[in-house]
Amino acid sequence: MMMAPRVCLLALSVAALAGSVVHAGALERTERNCSAIPPLLPSTAVDTRLRLQQLRERMPHLNISAYIIPGTDAHLSEYIAPRDARMAFMSGFTGSAGTAVVTQTKAALWTDSRYWVQAERQLDCNWELEKDVSVSSVVQWLISEVPPGSEIGFDPFLFSLKMHENYAINLESSNLGLKSIPDNLVDQVWKDRPQLLPDSLTRLPNRVIQRSWQEKVEHIRSLMGDNPYKPTALLLSALDETAWLFNMRGNDIPYNPFFYSYTLLTMNEIWLFVHINRVTEELKLYLNASCSGPLCVQLKSYDSVLEHLKTYVAQPEIKVWIGTEYTNYALYEVIEPQEKVMTSSYSPVLTTKAVKDETEQQILRDAHVRDAVAVIQLLMWLEKVVPERNNETELSAAKYVNECRNKQKDSRGPSFETISASGPNAALAHYSPTEETTRRLTVDEMYLVDSGGQYLDGTTDITRTVHWGTPTEMQKEAFTRVLMGNIEISRTIFPSGTRGVNIEMLGRRALWEVGLNYGHGTGHGVGNYFGVHEWPVGFQTNNIPFRAGMFTSIEPGYYKDNDFGIRIEDIAVTVPAQTKYGHNYLTFETVSLVPYDRKLIDTSLLSSAQLLWLNNYYEKIRELLGPELDKQGLQEEKNWMLKNTESFAHSESSASVCSSSLTLIMLTITLLHNVV
Amino acid sequence: MMMAPRVCLLALSVAALAGSVVHAGALERTERNCSAIPPLLPSTAVDTRLRLQQLRERMPHLNISAYIIPGTDAHLSEYIAPRDARMAFMSGFTGSAGTAVVTQTKAALWTDSRYWVQAERQLDCNWELEKDVSVSSVVQWLISEVPPGSEIGFDPFLFSLKMHENYAINLESSNLGLKSIPDNLVDQVWKDRPQLLPDSLTRLPNRVIQRSWQEKVEHIRSLMGDNPYKPTALLLSALDETAWLFNMRGNDIPYNPFFYSYTLLTMNEIWLFVHINRVTEELKLYLNASCSGPLCVQLKSYDSVLEHLKTYVAQPEIKVWIGTEYTNYALYEVIEPQEKVMTSSYSPVLTTKAVKDETEQQILRDAHVRDAVAVIQLLMWLEKVVPERNNETELSAAKYVNECRNKQKDSRGPSFETISASGPNAALAHYSPTEETTRRLTVDEMYLVDSGGQYLDGTTDITRTVHWGTPTEMQKEAFTRVLMGNIEISRTIFPSGTRGVNIEMLGRRALWEVGLNYGHGTGHGVGNYFGVHEWPVGFQTNNIPFRAGMFTSIEPGYYKDNDFGIRIEDIAVTVPAQTKYGHNYLTFETVSLVPYDRKLIDTSLLSSAQLLWLNNYYEKIRELLGPELDKQGLQEEKNWMLKNTESFAHSESSASVCSSSLTLIMLTITLLHNVV
Repeated sequence: MMMAPRVCLLALSVAALAGSVVHAGALERTERNCSAIPPLLPSTAVDTRLRLQQLRERMPHLNISAYIIPGTDAHLSEYIAPRDARMAFMSGFTGSAGTAVVTQTKAALWTDSRYWVQAERQLDCNWELEKDVSVSSVVQWLISEVPPGSEIGFDPFLFSLKMHENYAINLESSNLGLKSIPDNLVDQVWKDRPQLLPDSLTRLPNRVIQRSWQEKVEHIRSLMGDNPYKPTALLLSALDETAWLFNMRGNDIPYNPFFYSYTLLTMNEIWLFVHINRVTEELKLYLNASCSGPLCVQLKSYDSVLEHLKTYVAQPEIKVWIGTEYTNYALYEVIEPQEKVMTSSYSPVLTTKAVKDETEQQILRDAHVRDAVAVIQLLMWLEKVVPERNNETELSAAKYVNECRNKQKDSRGPSFETISASGPNAALAHYSPTEETTRRLTVDEMYLVDSGGQYLDGTTDITRTVHWGTPTEMQKEAFTRVLMGNIEISRTIFPSGTRGVNIEMLGRRALWEVGLNYGHGTGHGVGNYFGVHEWPVGFQTNNIPFRAGMFTSIEPGYYKDNDFGIRIEDIAVTVPAQTKYGHNYLTFETVSLVPYDRKLIDTSLLSSAQLLWLNNYYEKIRELLGPELDKQGLQEEKNWMLKNTESFAHSESSASVCSSSLTLIMLTITLLHNVV
Repeated sequence: MMMAPRVCLLALSVAALAGSVVHAGALERTERNCSAIPPLLPSTAVDTRLRLQQLRERMPHLNISAYIIPGTDAHLSEYIAPRDARMAFMSGFTGSAGTAVVTQTKAALWTDSRYWVQAERQLDCNWELEKDVSVSSVVQWLISEVPPGSEIGFDPFLFSLKMHENYAINLESSNLGLKSIPDNLVDQVWKDRPQLLPDSLTRLPNRVIQRSWQEKVEHIRSLMGDNPYKPTALLLSALDETAWLFNMRGNDIPYNPFFYSYTLLTMNEIWLFVHINRVTEELKLYLNASCSGPLCVQLKSYDSVLEHLKTYVAQPEIKVWIGTEYTNYALYEVIEPQEKVMTSSYSPVLTTKAVKDETEQQILRDAHVRDAVAVIQLLMWLEKVVPERNNETELSAAKYVNECRNKQKDSRGPSFETISASGPNAALAHYSPTEETTRRLTVDEMYLVDSGGQYLDGTTDITRTVHWGTPTEMQKEAFTRVLMGNIEISRTIFPSGTRGVNIEMLGRRALWEVGLNYGHGTGHGVGNYFGVHEWPVGFQTNNIPFRAGMFTSIEPGYYKDNDFGIRIEDIAVTVPAQTKYGHNYLTFETVSLVPYDRKLIDTSLLSSAQLLWLNNYYEKIRELLGPELDKQGLQEEKNWMLKNTESFAHSESSASVCSSSLTLIMLTITLLHNVV
C-alpha cells in the first residue's frame, strides 16, 4: 500500500482509521450544503453541536482561544485504536489524515484531497473544511481567527517534537502562543469513548526468533555505551519499538499487532509501561518481572510513564536518549534541563530493527511464498468468474483474497484494509470498497488490488493490476511504463548507504518520458508480523540509507482520473551486488512472487536488460512457488502460475527503454539493418 | 568546477582562498614532524606562537575558554578576500575549507582530506590537525578540552544561522555555552591585515541588462507584498544579492566580481550599505542617491549596517525578511523580539535570480560560444605540442587557456583558479598546479582541465579530460561511463519543480553498475558575470527545485588514486520538454560547446538514445561554433572542431546501457540474429 507523499505535512504521522473511505462519485447527492437556508445535511453528517459546546465551555478556564485536535495517538501511530479517534469523534470526519481546530466561534478541519468528498459528507455545518494541509495554513487560519496575544491549546501527548517545532516556527512571527494541556479536552467530553480491550499480550514462539529479548537489550545497551554523548537511558515510545524489543505482540491497533506501551531502558534497569492486568503470569516469568536486575523487566502501569520519567530525570548525571520522530512532546517537555536529553531522528531500536537478522529475512521470504498462493488464487478466480458471470464486485473480491490468506499457515488476518478497485475507483488513492461504492467487476474495466497479510512470521503487501478484456493502447503503455519503473528500481546497483529518496526517480522515469507521473511515495519498509508501513526504511526524504537486509516495497503507479488506476507493488530485500570493480554495492531482490498481467505488457517498450530481469524474476517465481503449490496440492494454481510465468521473447527494438521517440526507433531499425 | 559533497558540513559555506593548493606527492619530505625532539618543521610552516599568545591574552577578559575561527567572511562567501582570511592568518593553513579553534593550552584545525597534506606542511606544532570536519567533532573536542560551564566565543558575523544552530544543537546536551563576540579577536592581533581595495564600483552596460534595478526593486517588493507574513523589509547579505539587485559589480573577492555590501529594502526606502568613497558621482546619479523616495538608493556606510538595522527593528509593526543560508548571526541576533523576523532558506532575490530572464539566458549562451573557442584552442594546441615536444606542463597549459580566454570579447579573467592536472594529480580533488607540483604533460598520462571565464555577459565553467597516447581499457570504460552519466542527466525528462538531488543519481548510475563512483557533487548553478558556484541552483540537498531558465553544471567524474582522474563538465539550461501526454516537463540543453575526446569513448557501452544525444549535441556544436570560428577567422580551429564532432556510428549492441553483463550482450546478439 502506498504512502502519501512527504509534502503532505499533516498526514505524516497521522492515523489511518479502520473506518471505510468513501467513493467520490457515489456521494455527490449526499454532500452537505451549508449555503442553503436551512442548511442541508446528509444522513451521514454527525451532529457536533453539543460536543463542540462542551469542549468550548472548558476552554476559558484554561485561558486558550483555540484547541488543536490531531488525528494521531500518544505513540504517533499511523493506525490508531477507536478510543484514540478524537478528531473523528469531535468532527464526525473519519478519514485517516487530518487535523481539527476549535475556537469559541468556529471549528475547522484540515484534510487532503483524498478526503474532501468524505469530509463534506460527514461534517455538519459547524465545521469549515480547509484544503491546504500545511501547518502554516493552520497557523494562518489561527492568526485570522483568534485575538492577538491568545494562547492555542494542544495535547502534548498527540504532538511529535517535529509537529510542535513546526507550529512553533510558524507561530514565531505572530503574537500567539502555544499552551501544552496534558489532560485531553476531547476525552473529557467524550462520554461513550471506547474502552481499552481486555486481551492479554502474547510472546512470539521461538521458531520465529533469532535474538531473545535479553540479547536485544544487551545489543541496544552496547549502542548506548558506544554513543559519544553517553546516554544513561533510552526512552521507547513507538509501539513497535517495545514490541520488537521484547518479542511480544498485542491487539490494540487495527491491522497492527501492537499494544499500548513505553519502555525506559537504562544500563542496569528495564521499566516496561503497560496495562499490567494484561500481562499473564507466564509472560511475567518470560520477562523476569519479579526482580530488579539488569535483565529483569520491571512492570509499571502504562499511565505512570510521565511521573516515572520525571522522577528519573530529577536525578543527577542522567541523559535520556529519544528518537524525535516517535516521541511525543509530553514526554520530551518533562526532560529538563535540556542537557539531560539526547536526540536522534530514530531510536537505536528502530535503526537496528530496520536491518532484519537472518531468521527474520528467511521467515519474511517464507511468508511471501504463502502469500503469493493467496494472491494467485484471487487472480485465477477472477480471471475465470468475471468473464463468465456478472455478479462479482470489488467487495466480494476483497473478501475472497482475505479468505485465501486465512487458509495459509500462520495467518493472522489482513495487514490493512484491502484496496479492491475497479475502473475509475482505482484512480482514487486509498480507496477501499464499501457496500455503497462497490463496483461490479467487468471485462471492460481495469482492476487494481492492493492487499496484504499478517502472518506470525511476516507482514506482506502486494499490488497487482489486471484487465480481463481488451486494454486500450494507453492502458498498455501506462502499465508497461509503471512496470519499467518497478524493474528499474529493482535491478539498479547502488553503493550501500544510498538513500531511497535519491534513487526513487527510477520508478518514475519511464512515465516522465511521456509526461505521466503519480502522486504518492514509491515505497516503504515492511515488518515481521509488524506494521505494513514500517519506518524508517523506504524511499522518502526522512528514510534512512539502505543497508543489506532491509525490506521495502517498490510501488510506482499511474492514475487517470475517472477512468482507471494502475499500481504494481512488490516487496524487495536489499542484497549485496557483485560488481566489476567495486565492493559494498547493493541491489534489490524481489520477494513478492506473483506474475504481472501479460496482456498489459508491451514488451517492445522494454529494454533487453528489463526483459532479462523480468524473465529471471519469473524463473524465480517458478522455482520458489512451484514446490509450495505442489505441497498444498494446488494443481490448477500451479498450471496458472506456469502459464503466466512463461519467458518473454523480445518483440521489437532492444533499446526503446531509452526513448519513446519515433526518431530513435527509426535509428535503431537502421542500425539493425547495418548489422545485417 | 565541482563542489564538495554536502556531508562535509564545515566546508559548506567556507571560503576558497586565492592561494594555491599543493600536491600531496611532492610534499612528503616537507611535512612537519611534531613527535621529533625538537619538532621538525618545514620551511613552509608558519610560526604562530606570537599570534596565538596575543589571541589567548584577550580571551580571559571575555570569559571565554575557547574561540572559534571559521574560514568564511561576513557574507558567508565561498571565495573570500585576503583581509578575511583569518583562519589562514591564525593557523598558517591556507586551504579553502576549515575551522580553527583556540583554547588557552591548545589550538586545533579541522579540514577535509583534500587538505591534510597541505595542513601538515603549513601548520606548526602549536596546532593539532583534526580530520572529522563535522560540527559534532569540533564540539566533542571542545567538551574534552575546556572546563564544564565554560563559554565558547565566536564572531557572529562569521556564523550563518545554520552554523550557529548546528553548534547550539551539538552543545545542547553538554554544559558549555556559546558567546557571541562581535568584535573579532583575530583582527585585533592581525597587525598587517590587508587593506580594503580602493577600486570604484561599476555598473553593467545596458546591452547585458533586461531589467533595470528599479524594475528589480519593484518586483522584489511585489514578492514581499504577496507574502502572507507581510514582511516590511528585506535584508540582503550575500554579496551577489546586492550586486544583482543594482546591476553593479566590484572587485573585492578573487574571481568573483562582488563588492562588500548589504541592502535593507522596504516598501518605501532602499538603504545600500557600501564603502561610500568607492561610489562615483556617476554611480550616485545612476542610483538616485540624493533623494529618499521609494526608488532612491540611500547610501550608508558599510560598517553602519548593524546599528541601522537595530534602529529599524526598534520601530513597531515591522518584520524583516531574511534568507537563512546567507545571513550572518550578528544581523539575525539584533532582530528582536523573534516575531519581527521572517525567514526562508533563500531570499526572494536569490530565488528570482536563479531563473535567468531572456536576455540573461541569451548572453550566457553567447558567452559559452566564445568560451568554447578558447577551450578548443587549448585542446588543439596540446594535442599538437605534447606528442612533439616534452616541455609543456600543467602550469603552461593553464596559462595558455587563460590567455586564449583573455582574447575573447568581454573577457574579465578566469572565474576560478584553473585546475590543470595530469596523471595522478588529476585524482586529487581541487588540485591546481604550482611551480613545485606541476607535472610535464606526456602521451602516457591522462590530462584533466577544469577552467572557466568571467565575461561581461556570463560566467563559464567546463571540464574536459583527454589522452594524447593510448588509454587503457579501464580508462576508456571509466571515461565512457562518466560520459554516460553526463548524458543521462542531460537527456532526462522530468516534471518542472523536480529537485536536482532527486535526479543526480543518473550521473552515477553507469559507474555504480561496475562498482565505481565519485566523491563530489554533480553540479551547481552559474551566474551572469557572477559566481562560478551560484546558489541555490544545482543537484545538492539544499538546492531549490528546477524551473525553466536555470543554468547548472553537470559534472560526474571518476578518480583513481595515484593514477588518473576523469571529469566531464558542461553547463546546461533547463528548457521545456515536449511529451506525449503531459505538460510542464523539463529537460536540459547543454550550452557548453566543446567535443569530448573520441579516443576515450567506447561507443559499444552507449545506448542508442545516448548515442543519438551525443550526435545531436555534436551537430549543435557545429551549428553554433562554426560561424563563430569563421567570424574570428580561426580555420585551423574550425577544422579541428569539425573532425572532432563527426557523427558516431553505433558500433555494437544497442542496449548495453542497461547492463554490462556478458549474458545480456549474448542475448542481444541472439536477438539481432532473430531479427535477421
